[in-house]
Amino acid sequence: MAFSPLVDELVESLRCLPGVGQKTAQRMAFHLLERGRSGGVRLSEALSTAMSDVRRCDSCQNFADTPVCGICENPARHTGTLCVVESPSDLLAIEQAGDYRGSYFVLMGHLSPIDGVGPEEIGIERLLQRIEAESVKELILATNPTVEGEATAHYIADRLDGRNVLITRLAHGIPVGGELGYVDGFTLTHAFRGRKPLAD
Amino acid sequence: MAFSPLVDELVESLRCLPGVGQKTAQRMAFHLLERGRSGGVRLSEALSTAMSDVRRCDSCQNFADTPVCGICENPARHTGTLCVVESPSDLLAIEQAGDYRGSYFVLMGHLSPIDGVGPEEIGIERLLQRIEAESVKELILATNPTVEGEATAHYIADRLDGRNVLITRLAHGIPVGGELGYVDGFTLTHAFRGRKPLAD
Repeated sequence: MAFSPLVDELVESLRCLPGVGQKTAQRMAFHLLERGRSGGVRLSEALSTAMSDVRRCDSCQNFADTPVCGICENPARHTGTLCVVESPSDLLAIEQAGDYRGSYFVLMGHLSPIDGVGPEEIGIERLLQRIEAESVKELILATNPTVEGEATAHYIADRLDGRNVLITRLAHGIPVGGELGYVDGFTLTHAFRGRKPLAD
Repeated sequence: MAFSPLVDELVESLRCLPGVGQKTAQRMAFHLLERGRSGGVRLSEALSTAMSDVRRCDSCQNFADTPVCGICENPARHTGTLCVVESPSDLLAIEQAGDYRGSYFVLMGHLSPIDGVGPEEIGIERLLQRIEAESVKELILATNPTVEGEATAHYIADRLDGRNVLITRLAHGIPVGGELGYVDGFTLTHAFRGRKPLAD
Protein backbone atom coordinates (compact mmCIF):
# COMPACT_ATOMS: atom_id res chain seq x y z
CA MET A 1 0.00 0.00 0.00
CA ALA A 2 1.38 3.36 -0.92
CA PHE A 3 -0.13 5.58 1.70
CA SER A 4 0.74 4.45 5.20
CA PRO A 5 3.29 2.02 6.66
CA LEU A 6 1.19 1.74 9.84
CA VAL A 7 -1.88 0.66 7.87
CA ASP A 8 0.28 -1.76 5.85
CA GLU A 9 1.60 -3.31 9.03
CA LEU A 10 -1.92 -3.60 10.47
CA VAL A 11 -3.16 -5.36 7.31
CA GLU A 12 -0.17 -7.72 7.34
CA SER A 13 -0.65 -8.55 11.03
CA LEU A 14 -4.36 -9.25 10.61
CA ARG A 15 -3.43 -11.99 8.16
CA CYS A 16 -2.20 -14.13 11.06
CA LEU A 17 -5.88 -14.77 11.87
CA PRO A 18 -7.18 -18.02 10.40
CA GLY A 19 -9.25 -17.60 7.22
CA VAL A 20 -8.18 -13.97 6.73
CA GLY A 21 -6.52 -13.15 3.41
CA GLN A 22 -5.29 -9.86 1.95
CA LYS A 23 -8.72 -8.46 0.99
CA THR A 24 -10.41 -9.42 4.26
CA ALA A 25 -7.48 -8.01 6.26
CA GLN A 26 -7.80 -4.73 4.34
CA ARG A 27 -11.54 -4.59 4.97
CA MET A 28 -10.96 -5.27 8.69
CA ALA A 29 -8.21 -2.63 8.97
CA PHE A 30 -10.29 0.04 7.20
CA HIS A 31 -13.34 -0.84 9.28
CA LEU A 32 -11.39 -0.47 12.54
CA LEU A 33 -9.77 2.79 11.42
CA GLU A 34 -13.01 4.32 10.16
CA ARG A 35 -15.59 3.18 12.63
CA GLY A 36 -14.11 1.00 15.34
CA ARG A 37 -11.10 2.61 16.96
CA SER A 38 -12.30 1.90 20.50
CA GLY A 39 -12.90 -1.75 19.54
CA GLY A 40 -9.43 -1.86 18.02
CA VAL A 41 -7.83 -0.55 21.20
CA ARG A 42 -9.79 -3.08 23.27
CA LEU A 43 -8.72 -5.90 20.94
CA SER A 44 -5.10 -4.79 21.14
CA GLU A 45 -5.17 -4.92 24.94
CA ALA A 46 -7.04 -8.25 25.09
CA LEU A 47 -4.56 -9.78 22.64
CA SER A 48 -1.56 -8.50 24.52
CA THR A 49 -2.79 -9.83 27.89
CA ALA A 50 -4.03 -13.15 26.51
CA MET A 51 -0.87 -13.88 24.51
CA SER A 52 1.34 -13.34 27.57
CA ASP A 53 -0.86 -14.62 30.42
CA VAL A 54 -3.01 -17.49 29.12
CA ARG A 55 -1.40 -20.80 30.04
CA ARG A 56 -2.41 -24.44 30.08
CA CYS A 57 -4.23 -25.93 33.08
CA ASP A 58 -1.90 -28.31 34.94
CA SER A 59 -4.71 -30.79 35.36
CA CYS A 60 -6.71 -30.84 32.10
CA GLN A 61 -4.38 -29.04 29.63
CA ASN A 62 -7.13 -26.57 28.67
CA PHE A 63 -6.40 -22.83 28.39
CA ALA A 64 -6.50 -21.13 31.80
CA ASP A 65 -5.44 -17.93 33.56
CA THR A 66 -4.46 -19.81 36.71
CA PRO A 67 -2.34 -22.95 37.25
CA VAL A 68 -5.54 -25.00 37.55
CA CYS A 69 -8.62 -24.01 35.54
CA GLY A 70 -12.09 -23.19 36.86
CA ILE A 71 -13.62 -26.51 35.87
CA CYS A 72 -10.84 -28.60 37.46
CA GLU A 73 -11.01 -26.55 40.65
CA ASN A 74 -14.80 -26.73 40.90
CA PRO A 75 -15.63 -29.14 43.80
CA ALA A 76 -19.13 -29.71 42.36
CA ARG A 77 -17.73 -31.60 39.34
CA HIS A 78 -17.54 -35.39 39.67
CA THR A 79 -13.94 -36.53 39.50
CA GLY A 80 -14.93 -40.16 38.86
CA THR A 81 -15.91 -39.40 35.24
CA LEU A 82 -13.35 -37.97 32.82
CA CYS A 83 -14.19 -36.81 29.30
CA VAL A 84 -11.36 -36.65 26.75
CA VAL A 85 -11.82 -34.03 24.00
CA GLU A 86 -9.55 -32.85 21.21
CA SER A 87 -9.90 -29.09 21.60
CA PRO A 88 -11.19 -26.31 23.85
CA SER A 89 -14.05 -25.67 21.42
CA ASP A 90 -15.23 -29.27 21.87
CA LEU A 91 -15.16 -28.77 25.64
CA LEU A 92 -17.11 -25.55 25.19
CA ALA A 93 -19.79 -27.28 23.10
CA ILE A 94 -20.24 -29.95 25.79
CA GLU A 95 -20.34 -27.29 28.55
CA GLN A 96 -22.94 -25.31 26.63
CA ALA A 97 -25.11 -28.42 26.29
CA GLY A 98 -25.05 -28.27 30.10
CA ASP A 99 -25.73 -31.93 30.92
CA TYR A 100 -22.26 -33.30 31.66
CA ARG A 101 -20.99 -32.69 35.20
CA GLY A 102 -17.73 -34.66 35.22
CA SER A 103 -14.24 -33.35 34.50
CA TYR A 104 -12.28 -33.03 31.25
CA PHE A 105 -8.97 -33.71 29.64
CA VAL A 106 -8.14 -31.62 26.55
CA LEU A 107 -5.66 -33.27 24.16
CA MET A 108 -5.15 -30.06 22.13
CA GLY A 109 -4.96 -32.15 18.98
CA HIS A 110 -5.05 -35.79 17.93
CA LEU A 111 -2.46 -38.41 17.09
CA SER A 112 -1.05 -37.65 13.67
CA PRO A 113 2.37 -39.28 13.14
CA ILE A 114 2.71 -37.66 9.71
CA ASP A 115 2.67 -34.21 11.37
CA GLY A 116 4.97 -35.36 14.17
CA VAL A 117 2.17 -35.47 16.76
CA GLY A 118 2.72 -38.52 18.95
CA PRO A 119 1.34 -39.55 22.38
CA GLU A 120 3.75 -37.19 24.15
CA GLU A 121 2.56 -34.09 22.27
CA ILE A 122 -1.08 -34.63 23.28
CA GLY A 123 -0.24 -35.47 26.91
CA ILE A 124 -1.23 -39.16 27.06
CA GLU A 125 1.14 -39.84 29.99
CA ARG A 126 -0.40 -37.02 31.97
CA LEU A 127 -3.86 -38.43 31.20
CA LEU A 128 -2.88 -41.91 32.42
CA GLN A 129 -1.35 -40.49 35.60
CA ARG A 130 -4.51 -38.53 36.24
CA ILE A 131 -6.75 -41.57 35.71
CA GLU A 132 -4.59 -43.38 38.30
CA ALA A 133 -4.42 -40.51 40.80
CA GLU A 134 -8.13 -39.63 40.71
CA SER A 135 -9.27 -43.29 40.49
CA VAL A 136 -11.43 -42.48 37.48
CA LYS A 137 -14.30 -44.94 37.02
CA GLU A 138 -15.43 -43.95 33.52
CA LEU A 139 -13.40 -42.48 30.70
CA ILE A 140 -15.55 -40.95 27.93
CA LEU A 141 -13.54 -40.73 24.70
CA ALA A 142 -15.20 -37.74 23.00
CA THR A 143 -12.62 -37.30 20.23
CA ASN A 144 -14.03 -36.38 16.83
CA PRO A 145 -15.55 -39.10 14.62
CA THR A 146 -12.73 -38.68 12.08
CA VAL A 147 -9.96 -41.13 11.16
CA GLU A 148 -7.47 -39.36 13.46
CA GLY A 149 -10.00 -38.95 16.27
CA GLU A 150 -10.92 -42.66 16.13
CA ALA A 151 -7.25 -43.65 16.05
CA THR A 152 -6.53 -41.47 19.08
CA ALA A 153 -9.49 -42.97 20.96
CA HIS A 154 -8.33 -46.51 20.16
CA TYR A 155 -4.78 -45.70 21.21
CA ILE A 156 -5.95 -44.39 24.60
CA ALA A 157 -8.24 -47.42 25.06
CA ASP A 158 -5.31 -49.76 24.28
CA ARG A 159 -3.10 -48.02 26.83
CA LEU A 160 -5.76 -48.56 29.50
CA ASP A 161 -6.11 -52.26 28.73
CA GLY A 162 -6.22 -54.28 31.94
CA ARG A 163 -7.05 -51.34 34.19
CA ASN A 164 -10.41 -51.25 35.89
CA VAL A 165 -11.81 -48.28 33.96
CA LEU A 166 -15.04 -48.26 31.94
CA ILE A 167 -14.24 -46.77 28.54
CA THR A 168 -17.10 -45.26 26.56
CA ARG A 169 -17.55 -43.43 23.28
CA LEU A 170 -20.30 -40.90 22.40
CA ALA A 171 -23.33 -42.40 20.61
CA HIS A 172 -23.70 -41.91 16.86
CA GLY A 173 -27.17 -41.34 15.48
CA ILE A 174 -29.59 -38.89 13.93
CA PRO A 175 -29.11 -35.32 15.21
CA VAL A 176 -32.04 -34.13 17.32
CA GLY A 177 -34.32 -32.04 15.08
CA GLY A 178 -32.66 -33.46 11.95
CA GLU A 179 -34.64 -34.77 9.00
CA LEU A 180 -34.09 -38.37 7.95
CA GLY A 181 -33.86 -37.43 4.28
CA TYR A 182 -30.77 -35.31 4.91
CA VAL A 183 -28.89 -37.76 7.13
CA ASP A 184 -25.98 -39.60 5.48
CA GLY A 185 -25.85 -43.38 5.13
CA PHE A 186 -23.16 -44.05 7.76
CA THR A 187 -25.06 -42.10 10.39
CA LEU A 188 -28.32 -43.88 9.50
CA THR A 189 -26.59 -47.26 9.75
CA HIS A 190 -25.28 -46.29 13.21
CA ALA A 191 -28.75 -45.07 14.18
CA PHE A 192 -30.34 -48.37 13.12
CA ARG A 193 -27.74 -50.51 14.87
CA GLY A 194 -28.04 -48.42 18.04
CA ARG A 195 -31.87 -48.43 18.10
CA LYS A 196 -33.52 -48.66 21.52
CA PRO A 197 -36.86 -49.88 22.91
CA LEU A 198 -39.44 -47.08 22.98
CA ALA A 199 -39.69 -47.07 26.78
CA ASP A 200 -36.00 -46.20 27.20
CA MET B 1 -16.95 -19.54 28.65
CA ALA B 2 -16.27 -21.24 31.92
CA PHE B 3 -12.54 -21.63 31.85
CA SER B 4 -10.76 -18.33 31.41
CA PRO B 5 -11.83 -14.68 31.67
CA LEU B 6 -8.83 -13.68 29.52
CA VAL B 7 -9.90 -16.01 26.71
CA ASP B 8 -13.50 -14.77 27.07
CA GLU B 9 -12.35 -11.17 26.73
CA LEU B 10 -10.23 -12.05 23.69
CA VAL B 11 -13.19 -13.75 21.98
CA GLU B 12 -15.47 -10.81 22.78
CA SER B 13 -12.92 -8.28 21.46
CA LEU B 14 -12.39 -10.20 18.21
CA ARG B 15 -16.09 -9.72 17.48
CA CYS B 16 -15.43 -6.04 16.76
CA LEU B 17 -13.93 -7.19 13.44
CA PRO B 18 -16.41 -7.04 10.54
CA GLY B 19 -17.92 -10.41 9.60
CA VAL B 20 -16.67 -12.12 12.76
CA GLY B 21 -19.33 -13.78 14.93
CA GLN B 22 -19.06 -15.83 18.11
CA LYS B 23 -17.89 -19.08 16.47
CA THR B 24 -15.32 -17.41 14.20
CA ALA B 25 -14.00 -15.34 17.11
CA GLN B 26 -13.57 -18.52 19.16
CA ARG B 27 -11.75 -20.23 16.32
CA MET B 28 -9.46 -17.20 15.90
CA ALA B 29 -8.74 -16.97 19.64
CA PHE B 30 -7.93 -20.69 19.94
CA HIS B 31 -5.78 -20.57 16.81
CA LEU B 32 -3.75 -17.64 18.16
CA LEU B 33 -3.36 -19.26 21.60
CA GLU B 34 -2.40 -22.67 20.21
CA ARG B 35 -0.26 -21.89 17.22
CA GLY B 36 0.12 -18.16 16.66
CA ARG B 37 1.23 -16.38 19.83
CA SER B 38 3.95 -14.41 18.06
CA GLY B 39 1.43 -13.35 15.40
CA GLY B 40 -0.97 -12.35 18.16
CA VAL B 41 1.65 -10.17 19.85
CA ARG B 42 2.53 -8.55 16.52
CA LEU B 43 -1.16 -7.90 15.82
CA SER B 44 -1.63 -6.40 19.27
CA GLU B 45 1.23 -3.96 18.71
CA ALA B 46 0.16 -3.07 15.16
CA LEU B 47 -3.38 -2.40 16.36
CA SER B 48 -2.26 -0.28 19.26
CA THR B 49 0.01 1.91 17.10
CA ALA B 50 -2.43 2.18 14.20
CA MET B 51 -5.42 3.06 16.39
CA SER B 52 -3.54 5.90 18.08
CA ASP B 53 -1.31 7.20 15.25
CA VAL B 54 -3.15 6.77 11.94
CA ARG B 55 -4.77 10.06 10.96
CA ARG B 56 -6.40 11.54 7.89
CA CYS B 57 -4.30 13.26 5.21
CA ASP B 58 -4.95 17.02 5.30
CA SER B 59 -5.06 17.12 1.54
CA CYS B 60 -6.91 14.00 0.32
CA GLN B 61 -8.60 12.71 3.54
CA ASN B 62 -7.08 9.25 3.09
CA PHE B 63 -5.48 7.41 6.04
CA ALA B 64 -1.92 8.55 6.65
CA ASP B 65 0.83 8.50 9.28
CA THR B 66 1.90 12.05 8.49
CA PRO B 67 -0.11 15.29 8.08
CA VAL B 68 0.08 14.85 4.29
CA CYS B 69 0.10 11.35 2.76
CA GLY B 70 2.74 9.85 0.48
CA ILE B 71 0.66 10.22 -2.69
CA CYS B 72 -0.19 13.89 -2.06
CA GLU B 73 3.44 14.66 -1.23
CA ASN B 74 4.80 12.87 -4.30
CA PRO B 75 5.99 15.57 -6.77
CA ALA B 76 5.74 13.07 -9.65
CA ARG B 77 1.93 12.97 -9.42
CA HIS B 78 0.07 15.39 -11.70
CA THR B 79 -1.91 17.87 -9.66
CA GLY B 80 -4.05 18.93 -12.61
CA THR B 81 -6.09 15.71 -12.46
CA LEU B 82 -8.01 14.79 -9.34
CA CYS B 83 -9.81 11.46 -8.86
CA VAL B 84 -12.63 11.30 -6.29
CA VAL B 85 -13.17 7.86 -4.69
CA GLU B 86 -15.42 6.69 -1.88
CA SER B 87 -12.94 4.68 0.18
CA PRO B 88 -9.26 3.84 0.70
CA SER B 89 -9.84 0.40 -0.84
CA ASP B 90 -11.07 2.04 -4.07
CA LEU B 91 -7.92 4.18 -4.12
CA LEU B 92 -5.86 1.05 -3.56
CA ALA B 93 -7.51 -0.77 -6.46
CA ILE B 94 -6.73 2.16 -8.79
CA GLU B 95 -3.13 2.38 -7.50
CA GLN B 96 -2.66 -1.35 -8.02
CA ALA B 97 -3.89 -1.03 -11.61
CA GLY B 98 -0.92 1.34 -11.91
CA ASP B 99 -2.04 3.50 -14.83
CA TYR B 100 -3.39 6.62 -13.11
CA ARG B 101 -0.74 9.21 -12.14
CA GLY B 102 -2.90 12.08 -10.89
CA SER B 103 -3.90 12.81 -7.30
CA TYR B 104 -6.87 11.65 -5.23
CA PHE B 105 -9.60 12.79 -2.92
CA VAL B 106 -11.12 10.15 -0.62
CA LEU B 107 -14.67 10.91 0.51
CA MET B 108 -14.66 8.13 3.16
CA GLY B 109 -18.27 7.39 2.34
CA HIS B 110 -21.03 8.69 0.11
CA LEU B 111 -23.99 11.02 0.53
CA SER B 112 -26.67 9.20 2.49
CA PRO B 113 -29.11 11.62 4.14
CA ILE B 114 -30.98 8.74 5.82
CA ASP B 115 -27.80 7.88 7.78
CA GLY B 116 -27.06 11.53 8.51
CA VAL B 117 -24.20 11.71 6.00
CA GLY B 118 -24.37 15.07 4.25
CA PRO B 119 -21.85 17.05 2.14
CA GLU B 120 -19.99 18.17 5.28
CA GLU B 121 -19.34 14.63 6.53
CA ILE B 122 -17.64 13.59 3.29
CA GLY B 123 -15.60 16.80 2.98
CA ILE B 124 -17.16 18.40 -0.12
CA GLU B 125 -16.09 21.92 0.96
CA ARG B 126 -12.50 20.76 1.32
CA LEU B 127 -12.72 19.16 -2.14
CA LEU B 128 -14.00 22.39 -3.70
CA GLN B 129 -11.29 24.45 -2.00
CA ARG B 130 -8.66 22.04 -3.26
CA ILE B 131 -9.97 22.17 -6.85
CA GLU B 132 -9.71 25.96 -6.61
CA ALA B 133 -6.29 26.05 -4.96
CA GLU B 134 -4.63 23.50 -7.23
CA SER B 135 -6.41 24.76 -10.40
CA VAL B 136 -7.55 21.24 -11.20
CA LYS B 137 -8.27 20.77 -14.93
CA GLU B 138 -10.05 17.41 -14.77
CA LEU B 139 -12.10 15.89 -11.97
CA ILE B 140 -12.67 12.14 -12.34
CA LEU B 141 -15.69 11.07 -10.31
CA ALA B 142 -14.83 7.46 -9.50
CA THR B 143 -17.56 6.88 -6.93
CA ASN B 144 -19.20 3.44 -7.05
CA PRO B 145 -21.87 2.74 -9.69
CA THR B 146 -24.55 2.43 -6.97
CA VAL B 147 -27.52 4.69 -6.28
CA GLU B 148 -25.62 6.53 -3.50
CA GLY B 149 -22.40 6.69 -5.51
CA GLU B 150 -24.20 8.16 -8.54
CA ALA B 151 -26.05 10.66 -6.33
CA THR B 152 -22.77 11.74 -4.75
CA ALA B 153 -21.15 12.15 -8.18
CA HIS B 154 -24.08 14.24 -9.42
CA TYR B 155 -24.03 16.39 -6.31
CA ILE B 156 -20.32 17.16 -6.77
CA ALA B 157 -20.86 17.88 -10.48
CA ASP B 158 -23.71 20.27 -9.61
CA ARG B 159 -21.56 22.13 -7.09
CA LEU B 160 -18.90 22.66 -9.79
CA ASP B 161 -21.40 24.02 -12.31
CA GLY B 162 -19.99 27.11 -14.02
CA ARG B 163 -16.38 26.46 -13.06
CA ASN B 164 -13.87 25.67 -15.75
CA VAL B 165 -13.29 22.03 -14.75
CA LEU B 166 -13.75 19.00 -17.01
CA ILE B 167 -15.81 16.48 -15.07
CA THR B 168 -15.55 12.83 -16.11
CA ARG B 169 -16.92 9.49 -14.92
CA LEU B 170 -15.27 6.07 -15.35
CA ALA B 171 -16.48 4.13 -18.42
CA HIS B 172 -18.97 1.32 -17.99
CA GLY B 173 -18.58 -1.77 -20.15
CA ILE B 174 -17.61 -5.40 -20.33
CA PRO B 175 -14.83 -6.32 -17.84
CA VAL B 176 -11.59 -7.25 -19.59
CA GLY B 177 -11.43 -11.06 -19.79
CA GLY B 178 -15.17 -11.34 -19.04
CA GLU B 179 -17.48 -13.51 -21.09
CA LEU B 180 -20.45 -11.87 -22.83
CA GLY B 181 -22.84 -14.58 -21.66
CA TYR B 182 -22.24 -13.68 -18.01
CA VAL B 183 -22.50 -9.90 -18.34
CA ASP B 184 -25.73 -8.33 -17.07
CA GLY B 185 -28.11 -6.37 -19.32
CA PHE B 186 -27.33 -2.91 -17.94
CA THR B 187 -23.61 -3.37 -18.47
CA LEU B 188 -24.17 -4.70 -22.00
CA THR B 189 -26.38 -1.71 -22.82
CA HIS B 190 -23.64 0.62 -21.57
CA ALA B 191 -21.06 -1.32 -23.56
CA PHE B 192 -23.14 -1.01 -26.77
CA ARG B 193 -23.80 2.70 -26.28
CA GLY B 194 -20.14 3.34 -25.55
CA ARG B 195 -18.82 1.32 -28.51
CA LYS B 196 -15.76 2.68 -30.30
CA PRO B 197 -14.26 2.43 -33.78
CA LEU B 198 -11.80 -0.47 -34.02
CA ALA B 199 -8.79 1.79 -34.63
CA ASP B 200 -9.28 3.58 -31.30
